[in-house]
Amino acid sequence: LHGIIPPLCTPLTAGLDVDVASLERLIDHLLDAGVHGLFVLGSTGETAFLPDRSRHQVLQVAIARVAGQVPVLAGCIDMTTLRVLDQAEDALKAGADGIVATAPFYTRTHPAEIDAHFRRIGDGIGLPVYAYDLPVSVHTKLGTALLQDLARDGVIAGVKDSSSDDSGLRALILATRGRPDFSVLTGSELTVDAALWMHAAGAVPGLANVDPVGYVRLYRAAAAGDWTAAAAEQNRLAELFEIVHAGDPGRMGGSSAGVGAFKTALHLRGIIDCPITAPPQIPLNDTEIARIADTLHRVGP
Amino acid sequence: LHGIIPPLCTPLTAGLDVDVASLERLIDHLLDAGVHGLFVLGSTGETAFLPDRSRHQVLQVAIARVAGQVPVLAGCIDMTTLRVLDQAEDALKAGADGIVATAPFYTRTHPAEIDAHFRRIGDGIGLPVYAYDLPVSVHTKLGTALLQDLARDGVIAGVKDSSSDDSGLRALILATRGRPDFSVLTGSELTVDAALWMHAAGAVPGLANVDPVGYVRLYRAAAAGDWTAAAAEQNRLAELFEIVHAGDPGRMGGSSAGVGAFKTALHLRGIIDCPITAPPQIPLNDTEIARIADTLHRVGP
Amino acid sequence: LHGIIPPLCTPLTAGLDVDVASLERLIDHLLDAGVHGLFVLGSTGETAFLPDRSRHQVLQVAIARVAGQVPVLAGCIDMTTLRVLDQAEDALKAGADGIVATAPFYTRTHPAEIDAHFRRIGDGIGLPVYAYDLPVSVHTKLGTALLQDLARDGVIAGVKDSSSDDSGLRALILATRGRPDFSVLTGSELTVDAALWMHAAGAVPGLANVDPVGYVRLYRAAAAGDWTAAAAEQNRLAELFEIVHAGDPGRMGGSSAGVGAFKTALHLRGIIDCPITAPPQIPLNDTEIARIADTLHRVGP
Amino acid sequence: LHGIIPPLCTPLTAGLDVDVASLERLIDHLLDAGVHGLFVLGSTGETAFLPDRSRHQVLQVAIARVAGQVPVLAGCIDMTTLRVLDQAEDALKAGADGIVATAPFYTRTHPAEIDAHFRRIGDGIGLPVYAYDLPVSVHTKLGTALLQDLARDGVIAGVKDSSSDDSGLRALILATRGRPDFSVLTGSELTVDAALWMHAAGAVPGLANVDPVGYVRLYRAAAAGDWTAAAAEQNRLAELFEIVHAGDPGRMGGSSAGVGAFKTALHLRGIIDCPITAPPQIPLNDTEIARIADTLHRVGP
Repeated sequence: LHGIIPPLCTPLTAGLDVDVASLERLIDHLLDAGVHGLFVLGSTGETAFLPDRSRHQVLQVAIARVAGQVPVLAGCIDMTTLRVLDQAEDALKAGADGIVATAPFYTRTHPAEIDAHFRRIGDGIGLPVYAYDLPVSVHTKLGTALLQDLARDGVIAGVKDSSSDDSGLRALILATRGRPDFSVLTGSELTVDAALWMHAAGAVPGLANVDPVGYVRLYRAAAAGDWTAAAAEQNRLAELFEIVHAGDPGRMGGSSAGVGAFKTALHLRGIIDCPITAPPQIPLNDTEIARIADTLHRVGP
Repeated sequence: LHGIIPPLCTPLTAGLDVDVASLERLIDHLLDAGVHGLFVLGSTGETAFLPDRSRHQVLQVAIARVAGQVPVLAGCIDMTTLRVLDQAEDALKAGADGIVATAPFYTRTHPAEIDAHFRRIGDGIGLPVYAYDLPVSVHTKLGTALLQDLARDGVIAGVKDSSSDDSGLRALILATRGRPDFSVLTGSELTVDAALWMHAAGAVPGLANVDPVGYVRLYRAAAAGDWTAAAAEQNRLAELFEIVHAGDPGRMGGSSAGVGAFKTALHLRGIIDCPITAPPQIPLNDTEIARIADTLHRVGP
Repeated sequence: LHGIIPPLCTPLTAGLDVDVASLERLIDHLLDAGVHGLFVLGSTGETAFLPDRSRHQVLQVAIARVAGQVPVLAGCIDMTTLRVLDQAEDALKAGADGIVATAPFYTRTHPAEIDAHFRRIGDGIGLPVYAYDLPVSVHTKLGTALLQDLARDGVIAGVKDSSSDDSGLRALILATRGRPDFSVLTGSELTVDAALWMHAAGAVPGLANVDPVGYVRLYRAAAAGDWTAAAAEQNRLAELFEIVHAGDPGRMGGSSAGVGAFKTALHLRGIIDCPITAPPQIPLNDTEIARIADTLHRVGP
Repeated sequence: LHGIIPPLCTPLTAGLDVDVASLERLIDHLLDAGVHGLFVLGSTGETAFLPDRSRHQVLQVAIARVAGQVPVLAGCIDMTTLRVLDQAEDALKAGADGIVATAPFYTRTHPAEIDAHFRRIGDGIGLPVYAYDLPVSVHTKLGTALLQDLARDGVIAGVKDSSSDDSGLRALILATRGRPDFSVLTGSELTVDAALWMHAAGAVPGLANVDPVGYVRLYRAAAAGDWTAAAAEQNRLAELFEIVHAGDPGRMGGSSAGVGAFKTALHLRGIIDCPITAPPQIPLNDTEIARIADTLHRVGP
């Protein structure tokens, strides 16, 4: 697993159902840009907000539309082991190429329990498991030593690191060198060139929904050793990322502003029909939408 | 709603299925002691660890066994609004008398979103809604002003306060005085007498699974104005609560030690067949179990 | 040590010097009300904001003015052991009756280090040491077992519990029963009756600067076993405590609003000359001051 | 300000005084390696553990020994504005070239207060002020917008970013492009090449006490555009950084293990006489010291 693997947004209808036509257009938009994989049902995909029936539908639509052109990873986001295994079984049946799971959350936990959690998931499901390190949601940071143990024992096939902890990312990459079957992916939008420089296998940037061409260009430049071009592209994408700050933090949480911005941009570009986010997220207002339109106009894509 | 409302443990078989016979014996044990209600699928009930099919089964068994003798509240614990509503619909169909829901978790949130969350749940379900304040799990504290607004507008019928924040509990009770239809319940094991003294409507102590007679005795003493007897009983129960510290925090998280202790005590007393907790919780070892047996022997029940 | 021990506010001049005349009037105001001790240089005393020369001056003025009528405890608030010992030496020389110290802060710490910290302070200073449990500032909660060990070994003479954790307070009181020389004091404004009910030795409520008569009346009622009168007084004081919510949390932090409210009330009542708080705290505006005046007018003192 | 600016360790005697001879040897060791500046009284310098008299002595010794060869920045680490200003005045008198200050800590704060804090410090002291972003100690993250405002208004001359947040670092660098007088420095040991790649001005790595030659070599390679050599050196230094994990986290906090490892390595290399750290830090034991010796032997310097 390598390259640009966008965490797919989930377009919804005004009635909060999955908007299948928009979802298919979004997938085509990403595949046309040359992305190297898709991660469905991650945070950017509002997996925490979707009922199980919508999760299931997203999986089926995405896997059918991708039709094997690139690998599809399925987020199996739930509180503890047995619940994650239920989600994973659904992903397996739908035909996913791998699953992504976090440490236990909501419940008080312990490193020994996190270890047992991943081992039971790895044993219970015949698919590669990627550990999702997202302390802002899970309220636990996956330690380098724990991940290294799980990697050594073949329990996990990689890590999606959305911890924004560059030192931890570097330590993990160094600790798993010489393991070509193990993929460290950064979830950051702003430091993809630096992560690739450190030999990360790829990136899972939410902003790649909006500008997949830019991230693919960045990745190809880095792969070709043209780090100056990679940095220039990264800097442009960093400016584009300003759209996530359009939503007023006095009115809404970070998910409303972040996923709301991606969906608004996709709507403004005509790729999805409706920018609505699932409740209880707060919609962006006209001023905030205008700010996003300005940024899109100014820095592309 | 008032009095002692134990958060029901969920006995499991070695194969991790719901142990129906043990569950029924536990319910009888609590009803025989004179408890005033039951809260199923709370933290003590391992709701975060149970697959949906087990959650559903627990609800059905409990409601059938209680058969209307006392109210049954159903925990509807999930990340965000639509997912909670799915859980609530299941509780409604099963015949619960009310539901218990937290603020959104896993996702970054905002007070305006928490407000919208409870209002949509309240609108969407024809059952009383109790707000569950559990910052240790949810990583957000429900503010007094927010709860007061929701109470005033009839969105919520009460609060289960497991925040261990005595000042917040007092402020909420004072803010909802003269609202006999609004119940503030403490989730604390150790301060039930003090909470009742502050005019809390009742308590939801996990330890009441093990010693329901003690908590009912405490409640009755307080209701009769015999605060000295209430305090004496509370002090005995505080000693009994030491069982939750038997599990080594170097080996396991707080849920493994806490729920593990309650289930071990129920097993030692012959009420449930198997003390197992759901994965990835760590089982207590023989030394830890012996410590629990000693405490049970020394301070009852 | 027992009873009502207000954490003394530190009146400042517009030039940010200690306002000695106002400080003496405030001390007289508290002594006249019958308080049982004074805690100088706590959070309410803006100790975190005062230069060492101001801290020193406050100590000297307070100890001279009290002149042995009641015990004076000195907050020795600094990051680690040697720095606390320097503060403690200053308190010793000034004639304080005991010192109050927190766990190490700013630096990453460990229970073994917290234990070593208190032991070294206890050894190094010929004064009773009170442990100050204030997780909101220190970002560590003092555990019951640790405090119990320190109490057993005579390292600490008591605890000021400002953690708002009622269960921890109860557990500590039960763990130190039969130790008349060990004082558990609550730092809460809203639950003094409940804490006394649990056999806390006393309370250190910031609001007692504003209404010492009320808190002394509450304490005396409780001491006389008239718990109904104690609760009635507590409820009135809880309404008065609303003044700390006058400051807009969108504009300022909790210290600006809390200490600012106490000082504004003292200024409105003519006890201190100037309500200014030390930088970078944000001053209350006219609307916020008017709200405090209204509350004072409505519920006393 | 640019290049490698080690945060100077503070050698102590067994009696916990500043070991002046060792301090001078350490400074010579760093200057001989070609470092571009020194940061005294930072976290690695145990500033949180040093009494004011020791802080003062360190400043004087360091500035005298450096004798203008490179800039010397002084950490002015205290809880709030007036106390930081006292520290800054001492730094000014001692002849420091700039000061380093954090947001307020210990007290509950607010972005408007942090802004006011830095502005008052900037106004009050005739020295360049560098903002120190260290959420692990301060429990507040300095926001990009806040830092950008302070930079635009000339309040701060740079930032030492020890937040390990690579995205925030990138955003700040992009937001202050075209400001050659504004220096963004990373506090990370493991990602100096990546930070330089993103156009950070330099690095303040604690490990540079132990291996200043390595970090200077890394910086020079990056400055010469030889990123492959920079990455190779970074990878070697990452292996050396393993020494901070020698201390058992079950026995001690992160400061004991981290600063303890640096001092142990300096002692093993004969640069300082005594590896002792200030109380209440826990000393490393023989096994842990042997582990450090092994790593030093294996990967240099």
